[in-house]
Amino acid sequence: MDEFMKAAIEEARLGLQEGGIPIGSVLVHRGVIIGRGHNQRVQHGSTILHGEMDALENAGRQPASVYKESVLYTTLSPCPMCTGAILLYGIPKVVIGENQTFMGGEALLSAQGVELQVLQDETCMTLMRDFIAAKPELWNEDIGV
Amino acid sequence: MDEFMKAAIEEARLGLQEGGIPIGSVLVHRGVIIGRGHNQRVQHGSTILHGEMDALENAGRQPASVYKESVLYTTLSPCPMCTGAILLYGIPKVVIGENQTFMGGEALLSAQGVELQVLQDETCMTLMRDFIAAKPELWNEDIGV
Repeated sequence: MDEFMKAAIEEARLGLQEGGIPIGSVLVHRGVIIGRGHNQRVQHGSTILHGEMDALENAGRQPASVYKESVLYTTLSPCPMCTGAILLYGIPKVVIGENQTFMGGEALLSAQGVELQVLQDETCMTLMRDFIAAKPELWNEDIGV
Repeated sequence: MDEFMKAAIEEARLGLQEGGIPIGSVLVHRGVIIGRGHNQRVQHGSTILHGEMDALENAGRQPASVYKESVLYTTLSPCPMCTGAILLYGIPKVVIGENQTFMGGEALLSAQGVELQVLQDETCMTLMRDFIAAKPELWNEDIGV
């Protein structure tokens, strides 16, 4: 597997170990990880630090030119909020671990010209399936259900 | 003026006093402010804490039912990221100070059934016009340009 999706999965597992929601992400600029993160709903009581948002936040302030040469890796299909963040910063490509347990804003991303690659990775799917089965209320809270 | 837009403007002014970008927001549930905030790009080096996101974060973890009975007030038309957050949580109504200095995701919000009220408030417009004239690079960074 791609080293960057491996890093995103490491982030997801770290979140799980912390008692959180197992979704991880890395932001990669010209082949180098410049931000990595995972969902912080449980750990920081955060309603906005989804995995992708945490990776973007941890990348720090970047000029627009950096985002436009970057790829975002995420273990799960990006929700509407994370989709909007991708569009705001003009990130041109997103690699998605899987979209079987949750389908986010992929149609909007595609319509806006963002290149998507969906891996349907078994590890990503198992992480989410096990988590949703164990803590359905927490998962629903994270997606506004 | 509506007390809630007044509170959002207070937040925007607070941000300006701190050397930041003057955009503020409050989340109102059944007539009570449950979260308030302002853009934190300068103050916290944040790429995701736009005014609306800061208000959502400061409201803390809420059940879906609370968001669905809430109104988000923001001094400026919500960018694609903040638009996505509104859609994620199913906030049914957004009151917008103005959309003359920046037009965000209003078309998408309307298409998804979110009620919008745009005030074209002179105070909100002046705050943004003066800020954009003074610090155009900072403003462009905030909207990914």
